[in-house]
Amino acid sequence: MSEQSPLDLAEGHPFGPHNLPYGVFSTADEPGRRRVGVRVGDHVLDAGAAAHALGSPYAALLSLPSLNALLAAGRTTWRDVRRAITSWVTVPAHRPDIEPLFHPLSAVTLHLPYDVADYVDFYASEHHATNVGRIFRPDGEPLTPNWKHLPIGYHGRSGTVVVSGTDITRPSGQRKAPADPAPVFGPSVKLDIEAEVGFVVGTPSRLGHPVGIAGFRDHVFGLSLLNDWSARDIQAWEYVPLGPFLGKSFATSVSAWVTPLEALDQARVAPPARDFPLLPYLDDGAADEPGGFDLRITVRINGEVVAEPPFSSMYWTAAQQLAHMTVNGASLRTGDLYGSGTVSGPEAHQRGSLLELTWNGQEPVGAGGGKRTFLEDGDEVTLTAWAPGPDGLRVGLGEVTGRILPADAR
Amino acid sequence: MSEQSPLDLAEGHPFGPHNLPYGVFSTADEPGRRRVGVRVGDHVLDAGAAAHALGSPYAALLSLPSLNALLAAGRTTWRDVRRAITSWVTVPAHRPDIEPLFHPLSAVTLHLPYDVADYVDFYASEHHATNVGRIFRPDGEPLTPNWKHLPIGYHGRSGTVVVSGTDITRPSGQRKAPADPAPVFGPSVKLDIEAEVGFVVGTPSRLGHPVGIAGFRDHVFGLSLLNDWSARDIQAWEYVPLGPFLGKSFATSVSAWVTPLEALDQARVAPPARDFPLLPYLDDGAADEPGGFDLRITVRINGEVVAEPPFSSMYWTAAQQLAHMTVNGASLRTGDLYGSGTVSGPEAHQRGSLLELTWNGQEPVGAGGGKRTFLEDGDEVTLTAWAPGPDGLRVGLGEVTGRILPADAR
Repeated sequence: MSEQSPLDLAEGHPFGPHNLPYGVFSTADEPGRRRVGVRVGDHVLDAGAAAHALGSPYAALLSLPSLNALLAAGRTTWRDVRRAITSWVTVPAHRPDIEPLFHPLSAVTLHLPYDVADYVDFYASEHHATNVGRIFRPDGEPLTPNWKHLPIGYHGRSGTVVVSGTDITRPSGQRKAPADPAPVFGPSVKLDIEAEVGFVVGTPSRLGHPVGIAGFRDHVFGLSLLNDWSARDIQAWEYVPLGPFLGKSFATSVSAWVTPLEALDQARVAPPARDFPLLPYLDDGAADEPGGFDLRITVRINGEVVAEPPFSSMYWTAAQQLAHMTVNGASLRTGDLYGSGTVSGPEAHQRGSLLELTWNGQEPVGAGGGKRTFLEDGDEVTLTAWAPGPDGLRVGLGEVTGRILPADAR
Repeated sequence: MSEQSPLDLAEGHPFGPHNLPYGVFSTADEPGRRRVGVRVGDHVLDAGAAAHALGSPYAALLSLPSLNALLAAGRTTWRDVRRAITSWVTVPAHRPDIEPLFHPLSAVTLHLPYDVADYVDFYASEHHATNVGRIFRPDGEPLTPNWKHLPIGYHGRSGTVVVSGTDITRPSGQRKAPADPAPVFGPSVKLDIEAEVGFVVGTPSRLGHPVGIAGFRDHVFGLSLLNDWSARDIQAWEYVPLGPFLGKSFATSVSAWVTPLEALDQARVAPPARDFPLLPYLDDGAADEPGGFDLRITVRINGEVVAEPPFSSMYWTAAQQLAHMTVNGASLRTGDLYGSGTVSGPEAHQRGSLLELTWNGQEPVGAGGGKRTFLEDGDEVTLTAWAPGPDGLRVGLGEVTGRILPADAR
């Protein structure tokens, strides 16, 4: 390469060699050939080509059109592949082989990096659940009696999980305000976001065999940002008694980049103190490592920062969610995705949904880009995040972005 | 074959040549070779082998290890393949080629016939929803205000959909009776069934493009019986506010046989009169064919009949459910499965769950096989059904059966 090396450009970058998230990309000259890429700075390394060039035993695994085989390969392979790639991008002797295999991020198309098996969404932020309870049930206790005893969750639609950058058509559906005599049909007028972190399962488990808290590192490959788009008006009318359905199922956006758990070793933090004793299968008091992650999320609408939710404030951890999700014997499959639930911190500017930020539309947010209660057609929502890494570096998470198309744009 | 021909034995049989459901089977001598089978009487026709023997253009499609490609092939192909197979098993000249290609049902292993994409469960019986409302919310209206305006549904866990005959391990989890000071953990003490009909999507749809009621025949390939196993104690504690999760996700059993919609043309009936005007996207008043199906289900526990739920009594039809599920733009994938919800009729012996049959355990059912409130370890539950067919014949649906293993049998 005649210009500066992507490896030099990545020094000190949040996507430097200490990070190395995985994705799937294609190039304009071969749009049908999807392959595994590793992000280094603002470039993508063709991982399969690099493995071939360096005679790596992982060349076949990294030349596939999705991450599924890598996810299924298990923790030892995850570690070994990461070690190999780390050496490719850090050992100077590999430079001549590796440098020609980078593509600028701006020149590639990024794809949904794995086939989503089951998608589960949790509800693990005490601040979020309390805000929602206050908004929707102002006369009752904000948290339901079960909330601090188990991580509440529900299954979502895996077939409508889309990769960052996919446009989101405003959904239509039924809604009924309490005063309306009958429901009406039309485009959602309360289209919202939920800033979340999604965990990606690699190693499957057998039906009838629960995976405990200690199985988190063996089964979960990594994480990414996730935007659980929500039509609050549709949701409010439909969700009693069996939970959210069409208010959520039109789209869920995930980052094109999956960050391996190993890249986040410096970001592990203890979750908040628990108010109630937990049943043994959820008790993480004796866990080998802290259950939380110090991920600092930023939510932007049309470029303007509207919220900065701290993932470290989540009451329930991803390991507890995994233990709960399987305690009844439910099996895991490679590609299972589970969302943390909306990340909201204790402060007003730390809320991860417009429902909370605007208190159900009563208090608009935003300024330069225009005041917002809920999303308007054409709005672009972008989630970014970083975590503390080694040597004072930041570990960047891949962004999740999506633009709202009008309901009649089909 | 030296004994009587399977084709002669199938005459007048509920699985005769007017039925022809599809499944996937393997034989003891080649356990790894799964292939498409068509049930004829109490035999299975090796459909791919038959297609090869008769030079059918569908030989490749029918030699695959799952029904997915057939499901994805679309309505015209579904019709043509069914016509071809009907001729193979009815035209006398084909007998010498076809007869050697049958296997007795008792000699084959039946497998989950397609990869389940998303699994949705509805709640479409007014009688069931009313019973459940009366049991769980005795002081309120039994039906929620939305119930007659939209078909309530939620997503379930597709990874734990299992084929008939799979043992079901009793799930463990949290439960809390209202008087208990805190939740306790242990094997479910209220393990239940839900007798349902599951609809299998063949033709996918595009994200952002709703499929209306009129799209039912183009997108839905067929149906089968489904048992949505339910742990009522786990469900009761967890389901507010986001719906059922672990009380359902441990297992859902489906029949090994998928009955194509075309086999049920004589079984179409009008749904019950609707009490409220429906929004246009759900209004089936001008539909080309009646939305209901006259399927007569029998529920047995250890061989004893405990209920006979009539599917014709369902308030919401499968076509309405399809229209609702996609009205927000959610896409369909080949292999999507949606359950009708528990089928319960107006009479006490027509209730499709033990929750209703025993009124939450207060009134045991059964006699010869032992009184039951909820399921005991070792119990075997079997759903069967038939529908009116041509010329006074019955169309049998493939059974769904499952036996309860104790929680500690892992």
